[in-house]
Amino acid sequence: MNAALKNLIQNEPASKLRDWLALNPTVEVAEELSHLDSGDQALAFRLLRKDKAMAVFEALDTEHQRTLLEGLREERVRELVEALPADDRARLFDEMPAKVVARIQQGLSREERDATARLLGYPAGSAGRVMLPVVTTVSAEQTREEALARLSGQSERGGELAVLPVTDGSRRLLGTVSLADLVTAERGAVLSDLFTEDTYSVSAYEDQEAAARLIQEADLLALPVLDNENRLLGMITVDDAMEILESEATEDAYRSGGAEPIRRPYMAVTVFGLARSRAVWLLLLIVAAVLTVNVLEFFEDTLESMVVLALFIPLLIDTGGNAGSQAASAMIRALAVGEVRFADLPRILWREARVGVLLGAMLAAVGFPVASIFYGTDIGLIIALTLLFICLWASAIGGILPLVASKLRIDPAVFSAPVITTVADATGLIIYFLIATAVLSDDLAMALPMIGG
Amino acid sequence: MNAALKNLIQNEPASKLRDWLALNPTVEVAEELSHLDSGDQALAFRLLRKDKAMAVFEALDTEHQRTLLEGLREERVRELVEALPADDRARLFDEMPAKVVARIQQGLSREERDATARLLGYPAGSAGRVMLPVVTTVSAEQTREEALARLSGQSERGGELAVLPVTDGSRRLLGTVSLADLVTAERGAVLSDLFTEDTYSVSAYEDQEAAARLIQEADLLALPVLDNENRLLGMITVDDAMEILESEATEDAYRSGGAEPIRRPYMAVTVFGLARSRAVWLLLLIVAAVLTVNVLEFFEDTLESMVVLALFIPLLIDTGGNAGSQAASAMIRALAVGEVRFADLPRILWREARVGVLLGAMLAAVGFPVASIFYGTDIGLIIALTLLFICLWASAIGGILPLVASKLRIDPAVFSAPVITTVADATGLIIYFLIATAVLSDDLAMALPMIGG
Repeated sequence: MNAALKNLIQNEPASKLRDWLALNPTVEVAEELSHLDSGDQALAFRLLRKDKAMAVFEALDTEHQRTLLEGLREERVRELVEALPADDRARLFDEMPAKVVARIQQGLSREERDATARLLGYPAGSAGRVMLPVVTTVSAEQTREEALARLSGQSERGGELAVLPVTDGSRRLLGTVSLADLVTAERGAVLSDLFTEDTYSVSAYEDQEAAARLIQEADLLALPVLDNENRLLGMITVDDAMEILESEATEDAYRSGGAEPIRRPYMAVTVFGLARSRAVWLLLLIVAAVLTVNVLEFFEDTLESMVVLALFIPLLIDTGGNAGSQAASAMIRALAVGEVRFADLPRILWREARVGVLLGAMLAAVGFPVASIFYGTDIGLIIALTLLFICLWASAIGGILPLVASKLRIDPAVFSAPVITTVADATGLIIYFLIATAVLSDDLAMALPMIGG
Repeated sequence: MNAALKNLIQNEPASKLRDWLALNPTVEVAEELSHLDSGDQALAFRLLRKDKAMAVFEALDTEHQRTLLEGLREERVRELVEALPADDRARLFDEMPAKVVARIQQGLSREERDATARLLGYPAGSAGRVMLPVVTTVSAEQTREEALARLSGQSERGGELAVLPVTDGSRRLLGTVSLADLVTAERGAVLSDLFTEDTYSVSAYEDQEAAARLIQEADLLALPVLDNENRLLGMITVDDAMEILESEATEDAYRSGGAEPIRRPYMAVTVFGLARSRAVWLLLLIVAAVLTVNVLEFFEDTLESMVVLALFIPLLIDTGGNAGSQAASAMIRALAVGEVRFADLPRILWREARVGVLLGAMLAAVGFPVASIFYGTDIGLIIALTLLFICLWASAIGGILPLVASKLRIDPAVFSAPVITTVADATGLIIYFLIATAVLSDDLAMALPMIGG
């Protein structure tokens, strides 16, 4: 089955391609489409039956929707975009050039255009931007049977209906009732006895990631979105929450490698696009790495008289970088899921310092005998002590820098392994040469003031 | 509000603590509890009203549930565990020592014990392990009104009821109908006209991550789980899917820093536990880094006659490691969300090689003049060429190694930034010294056979 569609397009008659598209389920077709480039996507897409094409289009991620649209005629684009729910459409528009959006908007029906415009009126990244605006509500006085009778014949997208908001006469939110609770209630039950008053809601201006995480943590199927007067504006559904958290995780994954996130599928980005997303960080990091050249220049005399010290530079700075990355990645994740906060900084520093000492002591215990055998006990001692102090130092800064970033409202994920490595390297080299100078100096007392400085 | 609970516990009378716990919503309480250590958690938990305590317990992650239980009396533990849905209970048991599980199991009612035992009969990580076993079904001949009448008075957990499985007389799955579609259908509509036949389902033995991703991609509220004869065993709900994907993302985050994932909240792990999760990788990486010592030893004569070459070692290997990490993190993420496959390897190699050349050329263009001014054009040329080839090489292996891992059924995330860095370092040094030897040799022709070898 794998790569089947690509093969069909390249080697088989169109009739076979059409049959494959008709026979396979929507998600399978969407999945296969997403592996094609824009041109092939459009080719295959044109052979789908109209209703299935709509379903496949809806099943694609926002990023893949955008790639596909690039290969289609404007008329077709308008049709597909019109059929999308308003929240998905707003998200798609966010990803497209403003000019294209304006042209598509003009082609939409007045009602759909207004619905999208309302969503786009909220700031990017806000809860209002991703809510489903028109929502069926029920009132607290209705009985199970009255509510069910009123719902019959209403055709709305299923997702948000898994939870019904209960409102008063002026659309103020009183609570929510799940369809499941409504349906399984005893005959004649009144909604005021069924609905949950202690319900969650967010303001339209709240961060959409916070809303998505609330949906996840409270196991909600939909979350009401309110205006400043507690009036219901819409609902964020659980499938939107999953997509928000997913793209957040993708962002973090890119950052963890020291690159800017790309908001498109890997295969859909040009080579130039990929290079651009990495160039800035790579340049910044190399500028920071010039510090290591300066440190080594400062110790060039020591290095010249003991070239053997140069042999261990990569090993020692790698180890420091690794210990720092381990601490930073644990901390970035703990911050992302809300397990730690800035106020925990002292406890985290103390924890990571101890972890660093444990790890450093372990490495020193292995490194001392091995290095002593091959290079003598002086070198063995230098390596062992450096490993100990580098692990301590790197774990501590790896644990703390993401916390500091979060306090400064910078994404903690920018303190990725590459960034931590580069930061730890220059300082690690200083540690190394200070220890080397101290150990190699016959008169230890002479070296001590240097360490203190 | 932040850190409010910790402060209350330490500084305020118990009555204030009790009021805070009663007034704040369930998720808020659960959130605050998860920042406390096991002892304080138990203290606060005991002051919750019984029904709220149950709700808070359910709202906690599996990891936090486990931490909390460690501080409670056995009688209380049994009560809380009994009230959990069977799927959540099975997941909790997965995380607890077998002895404790056996003791708790004995205290459960026969029915609950059987339900859990059935789930635990499926392999760890399988879909069967996380499904909700008992599910209300409807049959295709029923009308909207008949189905609604039958559902009235049935009390089951709400989540799975958002979607009803349609089965035949022998529990074979015919399709599914969402409660929303059922409720909004016209009066008298027959289910056979309402339900979707082209429905998704998984086998109980399928990987639970694949099931969760299907739920996400197809925007499902629940996914039927079947036995080998297509009979319905249970449903996986969207909230379970979110938790599965979340813990998968956490695993990847730890791996990305070069550590083994810890299955507990950061603050709940002991310092020894943290050190253990990092020690193996740190040791493996330092053993691999010994290669860099060997490479440098091989070139020790060159290094001795030109100590200035040592100054650039950290900068050059950092850059290689960074370029490799950037490529690897993009690839690990693309694999995780199913955007690329092993069959794409040649295309990815070609893409990453070009990205590497672009990035390397950019860095060389900056590096050549700067290094030439301070250290002469020979060094400038060496640095520039090394940057170019190191970026090419590191991007290529960073892009490919995760793909190879996935082919070998190893988690691609093990090719984290630290691992890529270490792999790229030894090879990067070889590139550096070969280029240095070639450039510094008066007779370029003499050096060429060395590069070839």
